Amino acid sequence: MRFQQLLHVRRLASAGATTLMRRPITTTTITTTSRTALAATYPAFATTVRTMAGSGAPIPELTEITDNVQRGNYATLTDKDVAHFEQLLGKNFVLTEDLEGYNICFLKRIRGNSKLVLKPGSTAEVAAILKYCNERRLAVVPQGGNTGLVGGSVPICDEIVLSLARLNKVLSVDEVTGIAVVEAGCILENFDQRAREVGLTVPLDLGAKASCHIGGNVSTNAGGVRVVRYGNLHGSVLGVEAVLATGQVLDLMSNFKKDNTGYHMKHLFIGSEGTLGVVTKLSMLCPHSSRAVNVAFIGLNSFDDVLKTFVSAKRNLGEILSSCELIDERALNTALEQFKFLNSPISGFPFYMLIETSGSNGDHDEEKINQFIGDGMERGEIQDGTVTGDPGKVQEIWKIREMVPLGLIEKSFCFKYDISLPLRDFYNIVDVMRERCGPLATVVCGYGHLGDSNLHLNVSCEEFNDEIYKRVEPFVYEYTSKLKGSISAEHGIGFLKKDYLHYSKDPVAIGYMREMKKLLDPNSILNPYKVLN
Amino acid sequence: MRFQQLLHVRRLASAGATTLMRRPITTTTITTTSRTALAATYPAFATTVRTMAGSGAPIPELTEITDNVQRGNYATLTDKDVAHFEQLLGKNFVLTEDLEGYNICFLKRIRGNSKLVLKPGSTAEVAAILKYCNERRLAVVPQGGNTGLVGGSVPICDEIVLSLARLNKVLSVDEVTGIAVVEAGCILENFDQRAREVGLTVPLDLGAKASCHIGGNVSTNAGGVRVVRYGNLHGSVLGVEAVLATGQVLDLMSNFKKDNTGYHMKHLFIGSEGTLGVVTKLSMLCPHSSRAVNVAFIGLNSFDDVLKTFVSAKRNLGEILSSCELIDERALNTALEQFKFLNSPISGFPFYMLIETSGSNGDHDEEKINQFIGDGMERGEIQDGTVTGDPGKVQEIWKIREMVPLGLIEKSFCFKYDISLPLRDFYNIVDVMRERCGPLATVVCGYGHLGDSNLHLNVSCEEFNDEIYKRVEPFVYEYTSKLKGSISAEHGIGFLKKDYLHYSKDPVAIGYMREMKKLLDPNSILNPYKVLN
Repeated sequence: MRFQQLLHVRRLASAGATTLMRRPITTTTITTTSRTALAATYPAFATTVRTMAGSGAPIPELTEITDNVQRGNYATLTDKDVAHFEQLLGKNFVLTEDLEGYNICFLKRIRGNSKLVLKPGSTAEVAAILKYCNERRLAVVPQGGNTGLVGGSVPICDEIVLSLARLNKVLSVDEVTGIAVVEAGCILENFDQRAREVGLTVPLDLGAKASCHIGGNVSTNAGGVRVVRYGNLHGSVLGVEAVLATGQVLDLMSNFKKDNTGYHMKHLFIGSEGTLGVVTKLSMLCPHSSRAVNVAFIGLNSFDDVLKTFVSAKRNLGEILSSCELIDERALNTALEQFKFLNSPISGFPFYMLIETSGSNGDHDEEKINQFIGDGMERGEIQDGTVTGDPGKVQEIWKIREMVPLGLIEKSFCFKYDISLPLRDFYNIVDVMRERCGPLATVVCGYGHLGDSNLHLNVSCEEFNDEIYKRVEPFVYEYTSKLKGSISAEHGIGFLKKDYLHYSKDPVAIGYMREMKKLLDPNSILNPYKVLN
Repeated sequence: MRFQQLLHVRRLASAGATTLMRRPITTTTITTTSRTALAATYPAFATTVRTMAGSGAPIPELTEITDNVQRGNYATLTDKDVAHFEQLLGKNFVLTEDLEGYNICFLKRIRGNSKLVLKPGSTAEVAAILKYCNERRLAVVPQGGNTGLVGGSVPICDEIVLSLARLNKVLSVDEVTGIAVVEAGCILENFDQRAREVGLTVPLDLGAKASCHIGGNVSTNAGGVRVVRYGNLHGSVLGVEAVLATGQVLDLMSNFKKDNTGYHMKHLFIGSEGTLGVVTKLSMLCPHSSRAVNVAFIGLNSFDDVLKTFVSAKRNLGEILSSCELIDERALNTALEQFKFLNSPISGFPFYMLIETSGSNGDHDEEKINQFIGDGMERGEIQDGTVTGDPGKVQEIWKIREMVPLGLIEKSFCFKYDISLPLRDFYNIVDVMRERCGPLATVVCGYGHLGDSNLHLNVSCEEFNDEIYKRVEPFVYEYTSKLKGSISAEHGIGFLKKDYLHYSKDPVAIGYMREMKKLLDPNSILNPYKVLN
């Protein structure tokens, strides 16, 4: 069965022209109603993932042991503490058994040894917990959906897990201003659904949408596939309520786009990964949801053509461009080999781009995207591709992009990096790394958010070994640092990258980060062993 | 002469329909090449402005006297200090005479008594100056274009003026990524011109564009007329270099949209009005400039219709909406009376809206705006108006909006407020205030950035008197506070509003603002008497 609403994009070059969609995607037995539900429908993701220092075993060894972590000078939990929390929250919300899901990170790389999970039901309860922990010198790790990729949301030793899961309400959505107020533990997808009921959309979209919490997104300044259109969360988040380690509630909420009354301290809690305070509530500016969404999946012969096509997309699609993703040949082929239900509409090109538009007028958008692709083909930059505005087919194409990271970790060990690089040097690192690793690596590939200069570099091999590890690190960080890139574009620092922070942050800045930490969390009880070493 | 490229918008209602542009703007002898050059071409703005506590005299009394300011415990400038600075910067860049322009604020409300202006030519020189001043306990006020409206950029007592005017270079503009790096003292309009040379635009536009500095804009988190499209500077500014009071250079520069390596401290310098550090350099994300710009100027019968039209604009114009301004009848009429060269295309309505679109395809935009206006007229929400895509005519319409604030201060005393309010209550305060003031006020009116919930409330009277003052304040702040609005939406706190900060910020937050100030400026030498009291 072919796409029912394929746009009729024709190659505009003269003789020998082929239609753009000569190999349309065929439908398969996989039918998902939401592209973000894919991770949920593909449970292998959660059980077989192995990362750089991880093992193939489903449950890793305690991180305190594998990483030789020196436990901080914190108090040790007593029965009296537990009784106190039971009195505060009620027994149902004080967990002391079956804590594995709270102790192990999403990638099964980090395993903590917490003996206690607390599930407060209000900001006041969060405040009371932290006040007590601060006085007792009990360390605490705040936890949202636990979908982070740098070990920021799990305990490293025996920190108390403070789960925000019960603070899950969307408090208000104003369809006129587009401003929504939501509790931190609300799942991103639920928040988005609520926004869509009144014609709005949450300006943040990422693979973990079905389980990550909006508070965790804000605490990690989560990126994703819409940053090219809506910018990052520092622009979208209008206000934050954060509980400090002392138990003080810092009310930085605002329901306005413009509020210039004093220091803009809310940004300290956006991206500090729960080390400065616990975000309990926030307000966010939500754009109107688009009436028309179109996706193009195109093949290109060189990275130079990729860059030219990106520039052309920015110029010609302008205000309707909502995603601009890159997948290289090896990344795509690995996914296609691993997941037979995937069908790529085109093949045989070294580079692929997924370009999405979202606009208020379907006809206009179709005309713009056809023009953009026609021009690109005429100039010989775009070789082949498919365009669709059919919602189901749009999801089919997004599925390809979303399965790429999973394909790489399905059957092999994978070194994964999330870096920002100057666009002109964006892809060089993949070639350089391929040469450095030689036959030691099975796949060296790159994909990611080209529109944001954010590359996901992946080096796969049969299994972890020291020889390839030494070829990869710290070279990749040094290389990124030389280009003044970011060694963590969107995943954060957490536990896994804290030793590499200095590659992207200068010593004066790191010094003031420490001062901020001391000021806001004087006993350092909040999310220890993370961000700063 | 009529508009040459008027869009042919027709009223879609059936019988008795009138064309939308039945009274097109006629050209006048005023021809400006840039609407932002208006303030420059209308020098009365700079010389006759009177504000709340000001006087009609061109040069006000020293603020230290009028406002009974207790000078801080700072050292007093000596000849030795001046000699030190002359050695450091060269005599040409150390000014001790004719300092009036540096001592008096744009609105002629504040007059400081500085005896020294320093004009460093590099970040290193800024650092050396501050290190010296910090050790000597000499107070310093950083100054950009000195166009602020809350007295934040002028000395209050005898602070040394640190002018950023020589740090005026655009260092790079990347047409592929849209990222520009610029020194703090670059004039906004110059920066924008440079960006436009490569097809980009600076996502910030405001009346003072021809003289304000981008560093000042960032330090005050300036708003303006494009926030509805591009958001505020916390989203657009990617990196900042700031010199601290100690002389340490805090390098928080980034040339990337995504950089999640540690705390996002740059935001502390965006909107803290030079009290935490001196911004010397920054990087900014610049969108591609739009190929088509259209402006509609429409008349409406009620504020309810204004709100409905705003919602319709967001839905129907969506991604191309770039400004949504409101002017009430009294505000417009005052401007028309004061400035005879202005011609409004329509009259006789209680409310007017200026709606601008910017997009990549003129035909599409024209179709969208026609549809939007046609629908609004059919529903009876829009009564009459003009639409144009002709650049000169676009400027003519913008001129009306830009002269509104000047009209109000041309011949009378004016209490001016810049507040954020919930949209549903947006205009009520104007009616309430009109009733409170009765015949004491000559004009009580409202205009501003409706798309950002930002109202400029103005109360004019023959001359300042205590009776009307007491009717206006603190009522306006109490009213705003009750609605959880912001008592300073875009102008900042500076000197003039520091006593009212508590109406919009809670005590815990103000406490931590003080702690931040202590941490970053331990001797409190940077911009004293501002923001915090």
